[in-house]
Amino acid sequence: MTRPAAFADVRALCFDVFGTVVDWHGSIAAEVRAFGLPLDGSAFALGWRAGYAPAMQQVRSGALPWTNIDGLHRRVLDGLLTEHGIALDEAARESLNRIWHRLHPWPDSVPGLQRMKRCFTITTLSNGNLSLLVALAKFGGLPWDAVLSAELFHRYKPDPEVYLGATRLLGLAPEQVALVAAHPSDLRAAAACGLRTAYVPRPLERGPGGGIEGSVDGEFDLVADSFEALADELGA
Amino acid sequence: MTRPAAFADVRALCFDVFGTVVDWHGSIAAEVRAFGLPLDGSAFALGWRAGYAPAMQQVRSGALPWTNIDGLHRRVLDGLLTEHGIALDEAARESLNRIWHRLHPWPDSVPGLQRMKRCFTITTLSNGNLSLLVALAKFGGLPWDAVLSAELFHRYKPDPEVYLGATRLLGLAPEQVALVAAHPSDLRAAAACGLRTAYVPRPLERGPGGGIEGSVDGEFDLVADSFEALADELGA
Repeated sequence: MTRPAAFADVRALCFDVFGTVVDWHGSIAAEVRAFGLPLDGSAFALGWRAGYAPAMQQVRSGALPWTNIDGLHRRVLDGLLTEHGIALDEAARESLNRIWHRLHPWPDSVPGLQRMKRCFTITTLSNGNLSLLVALAKFGGLPWDAVLSAELFHRYKPDPEVYLGATRLLGLAPEQVALVAAHPSDLRAAAACGLRTAYVPRPLERGPGGGIEGSVDGEFDLVADSFEALADELGA
Repeated sequence: MTRPAAFADVRALCFDVFGTVVDWHGSIAAEVRAFGLPLDGSAFALGWRAGYAPAMQQVRSGALPWTNIDGLHRRVLDGLLTEHGIALDEAARESLNRIWHRLHPWPDSVPGLQRMKRCFTITTLSNGNLSLLVALAKFGGLPWDAVLSAELFHRYKPDPEVYLGATRLLGLAPEQVALVAAHPSDLRAAAACGLRTAYVPRPLERGPGGGIEGSVDGEFDLVADSFEALADELGA
């Protein structure tokens, strides 16, 4: 298969991670259940994730000094535990917070990445901190060529510094780099920086019936329903 | 085999790259010969590498603004070509400069790294820029968990910010991280930051008879004569 024209010059694929590569909802829900907390695992996972964007926004606006995602996840967790009236000691809270270091890849993630790695440089480009991304890669066998994180720039996506910082570190022009993501808002911010875009919707990201962000047909350079389908589209 | 006591808490191994993981001298000498320049390949490789430390020192002292290793290699190359009276156009110079992106690993590097990767997080910690390190990894099949570069901190080794920046990104304390290097000066700077040290001398780094930096018996936590011997020592 020939590569789509928009991808003719692309040398590196940068992947959003939470939701795009790994199933945070299913992994967290299962672990919260296994942890034995008197909670609905799915609702707790959704609540934890719902606190993530506002916490990042506090960093982006300057209301909170630079705090990495482990730190933000912990702040949200502490709030949720208080809300649910659950008392846990420090060690248990830290252990629970590390759930985010062992999220399972979607079934197509590893086989698709292995194929794309043969033809492209494949890297993360996630708001997750570097140590979290390395832990996820070792846990799930994700074959990254490099692990790039918003943490390297002390900015969070969708700030342009993250996308442009990644292209600079890769030694490439923006049009030689594509973002692969399950989130239209992330892809739009990458496109505004000149990157190419591949949209891989993940309808189960928030669990069955959880819904996805809206987008418009033709908005992105490529759309594929799995990493293996994306590898097909890219001729990898 | 039991791990040495100094390595009891070590979770991540950071590797120096030029000379430690890859054979820059042999690779450059062979490529310079293949490039068809009227030069002694070995002498040219040694001259190129000899310009590297003074160029970095100019950045470290502030005499030169931040310049990555591709940029410094190019400055040194331009000087050498002038010195040898060789006229090359821009494209040929850039192509020659990219030799540093395709250096061959020592024969024990990949098998040793594959073993150590099973028990540790393994990363680069090199003055080479990130895109160069990614290119080397793809060229040589180096199975890094992450690619860390001095470039991320805009400082060069042996500045402490590089070693401490790496431990911070890995989410570890200095005593949980070891530097593996063929260069005593690099290891001493890491030890001064609290990292553990593994010395892997590479007597052929500068070609046969090229010699190595001096060191004292017992100066480092571990000494091994190859990455496979190091994996043995670490019980990996």
